[in-house]
Amino acid sequence: MVSEIPEVVVLRLPLYVRALSRLQDESAGVISSQELGELLQITPAQIRKDLSYFGRFGKQGKGYTVSYLLGELRQILGLEREWSAVLVGVGRLGRAILSYPGFTPAGFRVVAAFDVDTNQIGKRVDGIRVRDISELEDAIKRDAISIAIVAVPASEAQRVIDRLVQCGVKAILNYAPVSPQIPGDVKVRNVDPVLALQTMTFHLKNLELAGKRPEGKRGKF
Amino acid sequence: MVSEIPEVVVLRLPLYVRALSRLQDESAGVISSQELGELLQITPAQIRKDLSYFGRFGKQGKGYTVSYLLGELRQILGLEREWSAVLVGVGRLGRAILSYPGFTPAGFRVVAAFDVDTNQIGKRVDGIRVRDISELEDAIKRDAISIAIVAVPASEAQRVIDRLVQCGVKAILNYAPVSPQIPGDVKVRNVDPVLALQTMTFHLKNLELAGKRPEGKRGKF
Repeated sequence: MVSEIPEVVVLRLPLYVRALSRLQDESAGVISSQELGELLQITPAQIRKDLSYFGRFGKQGKGYTVSYLLGELRQILGLEREWSAVLVGVGRLGRAILSYPGFTPAGFRVVAAFDVDTNQIGKRVDGIRVRDISELEDAIKRDAISIAIVAVPASEAQRVIDRLVQCGVKAILNYAPVSPQIPGDVKVRNVDPVLALQTMTFHLKNLELAGKRPEGKRGKF
Repeated sequence: MVSEIPEVVVLRLPLYVRALSRLQDESAGVISSQELGELLQITPAQIRKDLSYFGRFGKQGKGYTVSYLLGELRQILGLEREWSAVLVGVGRLGRAILSYPGFTPAGFRVVAAFDVDTNQIGKRVDGIRVRDISELEDAIKRDAISIAIVAVPASEAQRVIDRLVQCGVKAILNYAPVSPQIPGDVKVRNVDPVLALQTMTFHLKNLELAGKRPEGKRGKF
C-alpha cells in the first residue's frame, strides 16, 4: 500500500529524480547505487531500500538504467503531467515567487493569484492578473486546483490555509513564517530561508567558540 | 558537548524561537509544553527532550516563561547578533532573493553580491552593488563572512561552493538545484520550492487514484 511508504522516503525521491535528470542530460546510461549515493551523499543501501518500496529497478551487479529509473520515478511522483497552482498573497514575497524561474520548467504552473489589497487587484504580475481574494473559492473549485502557494503575512496564514483546505486544496507550499494546522489528508511544506539560516548559526556560533578556546580547555558548552 | 546534539534537534530550535516570538508579541507570560506542542504539532515529550539538551528551562507543572525561554534559545542559536552574508548569482533568482523581505528583520544582512555577467556587474539591486566574482575571495576574507547564499545555475554551483568553502565560508544557503559536496565542518541548507512541490505530488496522485477506485478494489500500487 502506498500509504505505508515512509514520508522520509517520499522526501528523498525528488532528489533521485533531480540527480537522474542531470545524469541523463550528461548521457549517462547506467548508474550503480554507489555512484548515485556519492552524488547525493546518501548510502547505497539507503537508495536500494528506498527504491525497493516501489519495485525492482536494477539488475544485480549491473546498476540502474538511468532513463528507465528516471521515467519510473517521475511516474511514481506524478511528474509526467503538469500541475496547476494558485498563489495567495501578492506582496513583495508573492511577487518574488511569481518571478521564480524554477516552477514552469518543472511542470508547475501558477494559474491564478489572489490578494486583499485593492491596489494590487486587477494588476498584472509576470503575466498573472491579481484577483480579489473573494474569488478564491470559485476559482479553485472551477479548475479543481489541488496546489496552493501561500505568501500572506503570518497573522493571516492560518485563516487563508483553512479556506484553501475547505475548498479542496490538498497540497500547500507555505512561505508564511508559521507552522499551520492542517487535516491529515492535506500536505504542507514550509519554505523558509530564514529558518534554514537559523539552523546554521548554531553551528557558526559553536565553531567560533571552539576557535577562540585552546583545544585542551574546551569545556562543556 | 555541543557537537553531540542531534541535528534534528538543532533543526527544530528555530521553530521554537518563531513560536515563542509570536507568543511574546501576544503578551503570553507562561506556556506549557502541551500548548507549545499544539502550536508546533510536536509532542510535548519531544519538546521537553529537545530542550533538556541545553539545560532546565521550565518548572515542574508550571511550564516555561516565554520571554526567558525565547532569550535563552536565541542565545543558543546565536541570534542575539547580526550576521552578514554574501550572495553569489544575481540572475532572476538572485534578484528575487535580494528583494526577499524576511532576512533583515531576522538579523541577516546581505552585504555583497557577486556575478560573472558583465551586464550585471556594477549595477545596484535593492541597494546592493553587484561585484565581479573575481572579488569574491578578497571580500569574504576581509569581512570574515561565514554565510553565503548561492543562486547560480546548477552547472556552476559546485565550483562556486568549492570557492566559498576555500575562503572560509561555513554556512551555505543553496538555491541551486543540486546536492553539493561539502567538507564536514561546513553546513549547507537547500532551499528548493520545486523539490518541496514534488514531494507533495506523490500524495496528490495517490489521493486521485484512491478517489477513482472503489474502496474494495484498491489494490497494491
